Amino acid sequence: MRYELYYWPSIQGRGEFVRLALEEAGADYVDVARGAVRAGRGVPALLRLRGDSPLEHPPFAPPILKAGGQVIAQTANILLFLGPRLRLAPKDEAGRLWAHQLQLTLADFVKEAHDTHHPIAAGLYYEEQKREARRTARHFLDQRLPKYLDYFEGMLARNPRGGWMAGGALGYVDLSMFQVIAGLRYAFPRAMARLAPGCPRLMALSRRVASRPRIAAYLRSKRRLPFNRQGIFRRYRELDLK
Amino acid sequence: MRYELYYWPSIQGRGEFVRLALEEAGADYVDVARGAVRAGRGVPALLRLRGDSPLEHPPFAPPILKAGGQVIAQTANILLFLGPRLRLAPKDEAGRLWAHQLQLTLADFVKEAHDTHHPIAAGLYYEEQKREARRTARHFLDQRLPKYLDYFEGMLARNPRGGWMAGGALGYVDLSMFQVIAGLRYAFPRAMARLAPGCPRLMALSRRVASRPRIAAYLRSKRRLPFNRQGIFRRYRELDLK
Repeated sequence: MRYELYYWPSIQGRGEFVRLALEEAGADYVDVARGAVRAGRGVPALLRLRGDSPLEHPPFAPPILKAGGQVIAQTANILLFLGPRLRLAPKDEAGRLWAHQLQLTLADFVKEAHDTHHPIAAGLYYEEQKREARRTARHFLDQRLPKYLDYFEGMLARNPRGGWMAGGALGYVDLSMFQVIAGLRYAFPRAMARLAPGCPRLMALSRRVASRPRIAAYLRSKRRLPFNRQGIFRRYRELDLK
Repeated sequence: MRYELYYWPSIQGRGEFVRLALEEAGADYVDVARGAVRAGRGVPALLRLRGDSPLEHPPFAPPILKAGGQVIAQTANILLFLGPRLRLAPKDEAGRLWAHQLQLTLADFVKEAHDTHHPIAAGLYYEEQKREARRTARHFLDQRLPKYLDYFEGMLARNPRGGWMAGGALGYVDLSMFQVIAGLRYAFPRAMARLAPGCPRLMALSRRVASRPRIAAYLRSKRRLPFNRQGIFRRYRELDLK
């Protein structure tokens, strides 16, 4: 099965959570919107899947996964689908729901991290909401960031099967947790330097994920886009408050 | 099986999406935090499930469902679990993923509706972000609200099995859609009066849900809390811009 991922070609964004799962599993996939327009790929191929497309179930927004005849959207939903197929999820139903619950909580965390630079509206430029962003970032760094990190650190601590977010083996939640930590360290280096000593298990998990052979090769490759100021995690010095 | 729902007792909030599914199915359930503290219920029972509780899988936030030994959180995850058990979801895997995808898109919609009155931080009072709220509401009403309504109206229009959001029978997504429309009409009566003629199928769906015998009885009962200014959908005249 060759999977097709459709996502914006110039950012990691929410597509990265799907990419990491496909890469760790060594799955056969195409990152369609990063392909050539003349080969029927590129952004036009992505746009054809949206809105008023003739699909039976058109998605509201990317990332979108095509798997044979199925078209699936919403990051956590895509990972719910891929988890068992890529052997990146617990085998029993209760374990899968728990992994999905953690993933949805990560999605909320990611949305709040994003909104630090876009508190008023995603459709406006950062420069149009810069003052408000400072206030939102202050709240995020003081209240929300420590609360989320404490929670996930606690979930690692109480997993009796050791070292992974859900169940006894690496799964898609671990890959997503790695991505969130990487994004936060990029966007808020000062805040994260302060908070990292309080979550040693999350830091160790990040290192363990980064050193997986396939992930390490992916991170060195051109397939891994760099963080930048168009994505979810953005480095604006003025938002990385002390 | 007696289900236990744990949610804040004074608001509809995200708990309402779960309540509506339990009510439509005629399920045996207890709304624990609305019970008496002396009977071991009330808010203390809710708080015991959070944070550093001795649970194996403590949730980050309510709503929380207890089903036998399982403790499940995240609204869409709870509905994913309940869907097949309450016969409120399509039977096949592809249909269930599609219903879940719509529910996650509704969750994004709900979060944006909420943020119109709390753009800076959920931890601050409305009065502390009133000016910013006006700007966010303007964007929401001009851009996002029509976009979401168009999308869901379109999904109703293209369902070949007629009249429901996913599949050929009423499911939890229809109940949630009803709740979102009700909330929007409460919070933004002027904007919704303007937009309603453009989404006749959503309006008809809402009426159909409201007239289901069990839902109609529930809406008349004391179990249905009124909308108010502590919930997700709030009526502030100054945000219901023309």
